[in-house]
Formats: sequence, C-alpha cells, structure tokens
Amino acid sequence: MRPIDLRSDTVTQPSKEMRAAMAAAEVGDDVLEQDPTLARLEGRVADLLGLEAALWVPSGCMGNLIGLMLHLKRGDRFLAPAQAHVLGAELGTGAWLAGGMPEALAWEGGPGRPTPAQVTKAAGAPGPYYSLRTTLLCLENTHNFAGGAVTPQAEHRALVAAAKAAKLAVHLDGARIWHAAAALGLPPSALAEGVDTVQVCLSKGLGAPMGSLLAGSRAAIADARRLRKMLGGGVRQGGVVGAAGLVALDYLPRIAEDHAKTRRLAEGLRGFGVAAPVPETNILLVPVPDAPAALAALEGVGVRALPVGSAVRFIPHRDLEMADIEEALRRLEPLAHLLRTA
Amino acid sequence: MRPIDLRSDTVTQPSKEMRAAMAAAEVGDDVLEQDPTLARLEGRVADLLGLEAALWVPSGCMGNLIGLMLHLKRGDRFLAPAQAHVLGAELGTGAWLAGGMPEALAWEGGPGRPTPAQVTKAAGAPGPYYSLRTTLLCLENTHNFAGGAVTPQAEHRALVAAAKAAKLAVHLDGARIWHAAAALGLPPSALAEGVDTVQVCLSKGLGAPMGSLLAGSRAAIADARRLRKMLGGGVRQGGVVGAAGLVALDYLPRIAEDHAKTRRLAEGLRGFGVAAPVPETNILLVPVPDAPAALAALEGVGVRALPVGSAVRFIPHRDLEMADIEEALRRLEPLAHLLRTA
Amino acid sequence: MRPIDLRSDTVTQPSKEMRAAMAAAEVGDDVLEQDPTLARLEGRVADLLGLEAALWVPSGCMGNLIGLMLHLKRGDRFLAPAQAHVLGAELGTGAWLAGGMPEALAWEGGPGRPTPAQVTKAAGAPGPYYSLRTTLLCLENTHNFAGGAVTPQAEHRALVAAAKAAKLAVHLDGARIWHAAAALGLPPSALAEGVDTVQVCLSKGLGAPMGSLLAGSRAAIADARRLRKMLGGGVRQGGVVGAAGLVALDYLPRIAEDHAKTRRLAEGLRGFGVAAPVPETNILLVPVPDAPAALAALEGVGVRALPVGSAVRFIPHRDLEMADIEEALRRLEPLAHLLRTA
Amino acid sequence: MRPIDLRSDTVTQPSKEMRAAMAAAEVGDDVLEQDPTLARLEGRVADLLGLEAALWVPSGCMGNLIGLMLHLKRGDRFLAPAQAHVLGAELGTGAWLAGGMPEALAWEGGPGRPTPAQVTKAAGAPGPYYSLRTTLLCLENTHNFAGGAVTPQAEHRALVAAAKAAKLAVHLDGARIWHAAAALGLPPSALAEGVDTVQVCLSKGLGAPMGSLLAGSRAAIADARRLRKMLGGGVRQGGVVGAAGLVALDYLPRIAEDHAKTRRLAEGLRGFGVAAPVPETNILLVPVPDAPAALAALEGVGVRALPVGSAVRFIPHRDLEMADIEEALRRLEPLAHLLRTA
Repeated sequence: MRPIDLRSDTVTQPSKEMRAAMAAAEVGDDVLEQDPTLARLEGRVADLLGLEAALWVPSGCMGNLIGLMLHLKRGDRFLAPAQAHVLGAELGTGAWLAGGMPEALAWEGGPGRPTPAQVTKAAGAPGPYYSLRTTLLCLENTHNFAGGAVTPQAEHRALVAAAKAAKLAVHLDGARIWHAAAALGLPPSALAEGVDTVQVCLSKGLGAPMGSLLAGSRAAIADARRLRKMLGGGVRQGGVVGAAGLVALDYLPRIAEDHAKTRRLAEGLRGFGVAAPVPETNILLVPVPDAPAALAALEGVGVRALPVGSAVRFIPHRDLEMADIEEALRRLEPLAHLLRTA
Repeated sequence: MRPIDLRSDTVTQPSKEMRAAMAAAEVGDDVLEQDPTLARLEGRVADLLGLEAALWVPSGCMGNLIGLMLHLKRGDRFLAPAQAHVLGAELGTGAWLAGGMPEALAWEGGPGRPTPAQVTKAAGAPGPYYSLRTTLLCLENTHNFAGGAVTPQAEHRALVAAAKAAKLAVHLDGARIWHAAAALGLPPSALAEGVDTVQVCLSKGLGAPMGSLLAGSRAAIADARRLRKMLGGGVRQGGVVGAAGLVALDYLPRIAEDHAKTRRLAEGLRGFGVAAPVPETNILLVPVPDAPAALAALEGVGVRALPVGSAVRFIPHRDLEMADIEEALRRLEPLAHLLRTA
Repeated sequence: MRPIDLRSDTVTQPSKEMRAAMAAAEVGDDVLEQDPTLARLEGRVADLLGLEAALWVPSGCMGNLIGLMLHLKRGDRFLAPAQAHVLGAELGTGAWLAGGMPEALAWEGGPGRPTPAQVTKAAGAPGPYYSLRTTLLCLENTHNFAGGAVTPQAEHRALVAAAKAAKLAVHLDGARIWHAAAALGLPPSALAEGVDTVQVCLSKGLGAPMGSLLAGSRAAIADARRLRKMLGGGVRQGGVVGAAGLVALDYLPRIAEDHAKTRRLAEGLRGFGVAAPVPETNILLVPVPDAPAALAALEGVGVRALPVGSAVRFIPHRDLEMADIEEALRRLEPLAHLLRTA
Repeated sequence: MRPIDLRSDTVTQPSKEMRAAMAAAEVGDDVLEQDPTLARLEGRVADLLGLEAALWVPSGCMGNLIGLMLHLKRGDRFLAPAQAHVLGAELGTGAWLAGGMPEALAWEGGPGRPTPAQVTKAAGAPGPYYSLRTTLLCLENTHNFAGGAVTPQAEHRALVAAAKAAKLAVHLDGARIWHAAAALGLPPSALAEGVDTVQVCLSKGLGAPMGSLLAGSRAAIADARRLRKMLGGGVRQGGVVGAAGLVALDYLPRIAEDHAKTRRLAEGLRGFGVAAPVPETNILLVPVPDAPAALAALEGVGVRALPVGSAVRFIPHRDLEMADIEEALRRLEPLAHLLRTA
C-alpha cells in the first residue's frame, strides 16, 4: 500500500522544474564572494518580505538561531508565545547557544499568540543592574504547535508596536509566513511589517529540498553572514539549491490548495465523529487519547503522521492531491475511534 | 527617622558573635587544600541536610548555577515552578551559562509548586534524536516570589518521586529551606530527601555576611569544587566568613520568631483594610495598585521594601524586633490606601 | 581577460555529471529519517576512511566544530599544530562554541606538525582539581597554512599513539586528506587510522558544490547527528547535493593531476627567480614583501590568489588545465619582482 | 618539624590587624546598594591604579574572567604572553566562558612578555567578514610562570601603544602588580597606564584572606558589576573581608622584604650548586630533573613548594621571616642534588 505521508510539509520531493533548475544553476563561491543564484534568491525574498536584505541558510533552525543571536546578549530574556518552535523544537539553542532566558507567554490573544498587553507587562520596566533584561520578542506566524494558527495583520502590528514601545527587538519565525499570508489574502510583507528579522522557509510547504532565509536590515544581515559562517552554514556553490528555492517560490499562489486539502481532511474526520478543529492553514492537530497507539495504527494503513504533545498532527502538502486526502480518509475511517478523545 | 529595612533578610548586620568568630577563625588555603573552618561548616551543613558533602560558595546564585551546571548538558530542558528564582532573578545564567532551556510549570500544586503529574507530563517520553531532552527538575522551598510559600514534606517527596520516575535529576533551591523546615517543625534534611543537589543560604535570614552552600553526593560536590574554581568562587582563607556562617546556623531555632513578626505585620495591615495574605514564613507579598509610588511613599516614612512584580515585598528578619514591626505598622497606617488594590 | 582563479580549490563549478546526478537524485527527509542518497554517500565515505559511520554536514567548518564539541567539555584544553585551521580560520568556534582552550604546538616534527614528544609533554600528567585538563589532539592533514604539507603515515601513527598514551581523543581535520593520501600513494583510510573523528571535505579539490563529512564510530556519529541539528545543519532532501558529492569522489584518482599543476606553477615561478617552495600537494605558498600589493597587481592581469599571512597562496584545481597554469605563468612573469622577498 | 610553606603567597594567615578590622567593619548589603567598606576599598584601589573605578571580586580568577568578558565578543581572538595565567591556570574560562580564541605570543621581548612588534603583527589588519577578529591584548605583570618577571614601565607603555594602534583593548592581569611596582620603585599606577582594565589581588603577597579587584573606567566597572552578579560573585556584607583588604594594602611598602627573602633563597641554592636564577620579585623557579620526586623529598624535610611545568616554584611571603628562609636552606642542602638538572 502506497503510504500517504502527512507527517510534515518537509517530506516533499523536489519537482521536475526544481531539478532542472539545480542542473542549470549559475553558481559561484558564496563564502569568498556571492553566489549569483543565492544572491538572486536573497533579493527576491527580501522583496517579498519588504525588507532590505536576506541571507540563505541551510535550515529554519539556523535562521531562527541567528535571529536570536543577533538580538540577545548574555542572559537577556526573550518573550515567545507558549509552545513556540524556538522554545520546544530547536534543541534548546535559544538558551545554550544564543544565550537567552525565555519567557513563554500564554495564548491570551488567540491560538498561538499573546496579547500586546501581555508583551508590555512581561517586558516590564528596566530594573536595577542585577535584574534580568528583556530585549526581544519572538513571534511565530503561522504557529506550528497551535495547529498552523494565523496571527492577523492587525494583531501582528499591535504586538510589534507593544514590543517597540518596550524597546524590544522583534524576530518573527515565519517558517510558514507564506501560509499565513495566503490564509489572509495578503502579501507576506504585510506580516513582516516592523520586525527586525524574520526567518522564512523554502522546504516547508514550498517544496525546496533545503534552505531557509533570514531577512532584515542590511546591517543585520551583514552580521548574520558572519554568524552563519561561525555555525558552519557558509557553503560554496549554494546556488545549486538556491535555484530550487527560486522555483519553490512559484508555488506561493497555490498554497491555498493545501489549505483546502487540510480543511477537507478535518471535515472528513469530523464526519467520523472525530473532534477535528477547522484548520486555518495546512496543519491539523487532532487530540487523541493515546498518540503512540494511534500513530502505529495509522502507519498500519499507510497513513503517516507525527505526534505533537497528546495530539496527532497531519500536514497535507504539494505532493498530495485532493484524491490522496480522500484515500487517506477511507483508510482512517475504520480507525476513527483511535482519534476520538471521549 | 531610623529606617526600618524590610527589603530583604539579606540586609542583616553580622552579630557580635559572628564578628568575634571571624576574628578568631582557624583558616587555611581553601584552593590548595581545605580551609579547616570551611570544612567544618561544610560538614555541619551536609549533616543538617542529610547529604554526603557540601561546598561553600560566595552566593546563592553561584550555588544554584553550579547545581544547574552539574546536571545540564548543552540545551537540556529543565523544569521549574513558574517565577522560580533561577528563572527570573539570576540574570539568565541557567540558560546562557548552564546551557539549559527552561520550562516554567504553573502552580497547580499550590503556591510556588507544580503537581507531580505536571512534572510527569512535562518530562514526557524520550523523543527522537532531534527532540529536546528534559533532564532536571528545579524546586524552590520556600518559594520566594510565591511569598515564601512552603512545599510540605509529602508534596516534596511526591515531586521528587515523579522526577525520578521520569529519570530527571533534582536540584532544590533551598536558599530558605530553613524557613520551610521551621514552618513545618521538621529538620531541614526532611525537605532535602531524594534531591541530587540543594543550595542553602547563610545570608538570607540567618545573618551571615555572605555565603551559601551546595550539598549533594561526594562525587557531585567534587565536580562542584572544580566548577566553583571556574566561576571564580574559589577563595583562600574563606574560613573567616565560614566562621560567621557557623554562628549563623545557631539562629535556626529562632527562625519561628521571624515568622511571627511577619504574621504580625500582615495582621496589622489587614487591620488597615489591606489585603495582606497570611504569610507562611518570613515573606509578605502585598499586591498594590502602583508599586513604585507605594515604595516611594513608604521610603518617606522610613519603611523600606522592594517590588516583586506588582506587589510590595516585606521581609522581617533577625535585626528587627517585634517592636520594630509595631513601629512600622504605625508608620504605614496613614499610607494604607497605597497598599489597597480596590 | 579570462580570470585564472587560484584563490582556492573551493571555487570549482559543479561538473556536468554532478549536475545530472543532482537532477536525478533519489531523496528523502534527512531529519525525520535518512535521505537515501546521503546515506549512500555517508556509507561510501566511512568505507574510504575505514571508520564505522559518517555524517554529511554543510561545511568543513561544521564538521570540525562538531568534532570538537564531541570531545571537549567546558574549558578542556586541546592541542593543535600551530596555524591549524581550527585555531585561526574558523572564527574562534573551537573556543567560544565548543568550549576548548587551545594550545598551539610548534612545527617541530616537520611542516604543519608537532612531534609525538611535544604531544606527550603538552598533554602532561593529570593535575589537581583546579588545573586545566587536556583531552584532545587535533591534527590537520594536509595542513593548509603550512602550504598543503603532508603528514606521512608513520608520523600520523606516532602522533595518534602519543595522544592515546596520554588519554587524549584525536580529531583529524582531513579537509584535504585526499591530497595527503594521493601524495603518499595510500588509501585515505591509512591516514585516518586510530582517530576518533575525522572531517573530510567534498568541496575542496573534489569539486562538489557543498558538503563535508564527519566520520567516526557509530556512537560518535549518532551524537554528531544531534549536534548537527543543534547547529542548524540538519537539512531535508540533502540528497540533491549528496548526489554531487558521490560524483565528486570519482575525482579521487585524478588528484595527482592537481599536484602536478601546482609543482609546475612553483617551478615556473622559480624560473623567474621567485623563492617558491616545491609543493607537496595542491597548495603553493609564496612569501612576498607586500601581499596586498602583489595580489592587486595579480588581479590586474587576471590571476587571482589569496593572502595567507605575508604569503600569497595559489591553489590549482580541477577546473584549471595545465595550459591555464602556463598562461598564468606568462601573466605572472612581468610581476615576478612583486613575488620576490629580497 | 614545622613546615615552611613556600607553595604560594596565598597561604598567608590574616594578621591580627586584619582580624580586628573584620570584627569592626562597617558593612551593608553590597548587592542592593554599596557596602561602605567595600566602597572604600574600591576607591582606594582605583586611586592606587590611577583609574576611575574598581570592583571587589572574590578571586583573581573572577577578576580576570570579567575583564575578558568585558572586552570579548563571541570568538574574538585575544593575545597573551605564552604561559599567561589566563591561558593555562584558569580552567579555560577565557575560551569557554568569555568566548575568546587565544593566541599565545612567545617571550621575544624578555621573560614573560612579547615585543610591541609581535603585538602589531599578531593583531594584523582587519580581514574579510569570515576572518577571526583580534580585539584584546592581555598582559601579566609580574608574570607568574616566567618566575615573577617584571615588565618595565617603558615596555608596558610600548606594548599598550602597539595594542591601541591596532585598536585592541588591553587587560592587565596585575595580580602581583604590587611586586612589579616595588621592584621598579614606582607606584602601581605607573604600570596600569593606558589599560582598559586591570585585575589586582589582595590575597597574593598582601595577606588578605580573599579578594581581588578589577579596575577600569566607570562605565567598564558598571558593566563588571552586572557580570559579577551573573557569575555569583555578588555578596552581601562583603565589607567584612573588604576591611581585611584595606589592612592588606598597608603591606605595600614592605613588599621589597619578600623580594629580599626570595633573592636570599636563590643565592643560598646557588651556593649548593643549584642553577637558581636571580629572582626579580617574590617567585623563584628552579628547573629540576624530576619535579614530583623533588617535591616529595622537600615535603619530607618540611619545605613545601609547587611544580610549574618541570620546575619547582618557591614563593616567600609575609608570614615567613628571613630566618625561615635560612632554615629552609639548611633543610634543602642535603637535597640539593634533586634540584640540579645536569
């Protein structure tokens, strides 16, 4: 039985166009100077985000890590929504490597986000010399572990404004900013307004084999280039994968299709009595009584997913058609009891 | 007007006995070998805590920091009650220096503590190689920013058991373990049961001019000695302050007097319509509408306190008599409106 | 005028075969499981090196960094030949990120290497708890800043034996181990004997667009996989560049050609009265009176090189023919005075 | 047999005056505000050094560490004389904790110091973004492992000038700056000219039970205060030991007596055919064939010393009279063969 892989939107295969682009890419040594294809990709992404400059990095983790390193000094506190990727899914690098003491903010503003008032309160007033200093707000849009939750533009603006009023820098984990923008019918730049840095990912949803970008001011990105070299992310003829990234961006207008697949999956599950929420983007979190048991059973019928806490996470993506979702639902129907919590 | 200093129990002056002991202390080079007075102090504290060994350190911050360094590897997650001192009052060292990614646990078990079930859930099951690894539970007894809240022995045991079942090490910030033990009528060792390391403080409440101890197994304390040298906490004839520490321990039987002073202060304030809680130990947190304004007004009548979030914190201590508390109340009465939230 | 780029062997363009391989690569998500092409590459490199396992990393810097992180605990001292790449050309990561205190060993054993006796002496005997602990020897073969100097097999063995006798781990920076092996007519495994970890590079001399590998025991490589994820080097469908790496390895039998080009360049320069040494491999260091001036003049005639201290470094590579070397010599002849020190 | 302890000048007992001063010290909480006695000590030391401000720290290691932390950013290279204390005797903290990549400079300028030309050359010119950045010169005066070698004022000035011309900050490990000043007949400030920070020690030679100071500009010392708290070096009523430090400074005019004792010891040993150098200050390094054997034999006759590499180090101090030196020589005479290298 052909597996239907809903574990992540990172499992996609590079398309024929990407493969052709990799084979034909114009490249140079991106450590000694700029690889021309990476430079083109960086320019295009900076434009999409309305920022001055961007830098290719091998992974979203490195992009977020460099973002934090740029803004944090030894022991500075940073704020992030509870269950942010930088808190729980990046091996503690925000703390041990970027040196930040995190403060998780509860989702009082909606799924995956705090309110501006929470930011103001947590930032606090400057204290005496021996007190923790809060210098950064990390946002995440869409918020992965909140089930791909979207922060609307007005909320984004208000959060950034609260941060700036408290003299905090703002880093946005925008690995799936594309999905938030598509859900809102806005250009990505609308959701990067006011941030100091933003990480966006080419291999999540867009289909590139690897690579993310960190965008920000020219000065920030110059510093980021040095940090990237430190971390071992400086590569030579990176344009070969950069070329695939440029093709991946062409998928942006089609992201809504993935959202439709995800909604269909949720609707189908609800038809089986499963308490599946209405997904905002391409991530569906289904709370289950026993995630390991459910996942094993799903694997048995060729439907692959991953656990997120006590939920099962499904992420439809560009390598799956609507027909695959229907097939997945057929396979899941007999197992629906494993996806019901009560 | 003579100020009544209720900012902290660290403001105490060394007693006449301490001063005499410092002047007479038998000392040696504690880097090259063991200072005899520090060795005596370390032995006595290890005994009080029912642990194999102890190490003098210049401050509670260093004791906690070494405790975390002993247990954490790069990026390991550690659990701690929300608002723990190691999270918010030690300049981020748990993260940037010990390398840990903290997870704050809400106080579902009572003031200042999580439930064992929270520990179990947060520790989680071991995940794939790319997932955060949780290796440590930090407890704090009494919990400073929970208003000196006591974790009873049964709760302590249950929390330690949950941690051990999840293969977590346990570090206890016992800066004021003395106060918890006094409140419960137990020896301090009853509240250090099962921990891997515990930090206890001689300058908080007991009156020593400086110094804390980290206690644990002989092996852990041998490693801690090296870490102490790294951090710059290895001193030479430390016995001069160790001698004061030995005298400070003689105050243990009198700690209940400080609790009585604190209860009296709370009671007096309630008499003025202030919503002061009944303090469990020597810390009183009074929520106020405007902490800076209240503190400034208090300072004006010679009553000194500190802000903790939006509360005013009072800590009676050995250098204050019950009469000083009565005098403080007399001075506070006209300002009571500043200490009322509604 | 067409530039002849002798700055580094990293400036090579991916070959037609590499581009085809990238376009056709079988790939998978290398974070969630193993990308099949990367797995094949890792297996082939481990075999070449006679080690149990290998791990693809985006760059040689990341490979060395992970090697050091595996072996060093906070503040451990590591030994390395003077001017080793890990000391002077990796942005201090051995110190600030891997946490090691380096000790540079003079080249008493020959160009680019210490003697075994130096290793023994520097390792020293274990001291008291407050003394620096030496735990690692880093070797570099060929040694870049010693002009591509080769450590012969017997010397390698003796250095490793001295390290092991002193209970030091051994990490080999083998970015150009291929060149050392070719110069000696040995398989690469002969020069990785006894090491705990070795980093080898696919983009230096072999022509891959990016990528290095870290090899060692299965246990070390399992730990390295986690560290790679931490640093942001975990990628998804990395097989697209892994495929190019597999093709790059086919160049191994032809490395001697690059050595011949380098010897010809040196010989030609000597013909102009330049004190060019006889190069052992593919790196030629020419001491000059004023490196910036010389490099600018060379650039003017379309010959590109880089400074190394007060020398000019030339690295012939697979994208240059012997005819290009002859052309370079023709262009350099009128500038020979800039390459003469006296 | 009463041991004659020549291991270090840190083994001294606090004098009667120090003990009385500790017993009588005026003290306050030095975390919340300034302890008055520490403030007085800090002011007096800043004046002695001709700098704006100073900060008490528990140990010389912490003083040096904070000095490095102030000046170094992630991975910055710092220069130091070979065998500097910060390189080999502080548990690697310059690297792992302050984040610096050290470069040891050979003693081409005299015992324990490089030439200004070496500094200039090692500092180098600024390179491209991916190159190591050199930002700090550490000096050490007197230089411990060079046998208490003194850097004369003119040399100090020239080294500082070379550093400043290369835009390096300068930190001076002046743990025994007192001894250098005494040997040269200059005030300590003459040897701190131009430095950004200097660490001076009260427990080495001067007899205080613990404590060093870091001095520099007011801004640097404000930052240092925060770093001290981070490392766990913020203490409460530190004035109790600060008072001993103030008394210790009264020994400054008598330091020459310790130099005389050291010269007498060397002279006596030379009389036994031992190749003892003429010591410049209070440290005598005697190269021996087998340091552990020699030290054990010395211990057997009640003369205590420590190994430094393959030498035996003797440090006469204020707790020893000239008569003790004569007695030590009587005991050493029969063991003189163990102190002869050929």
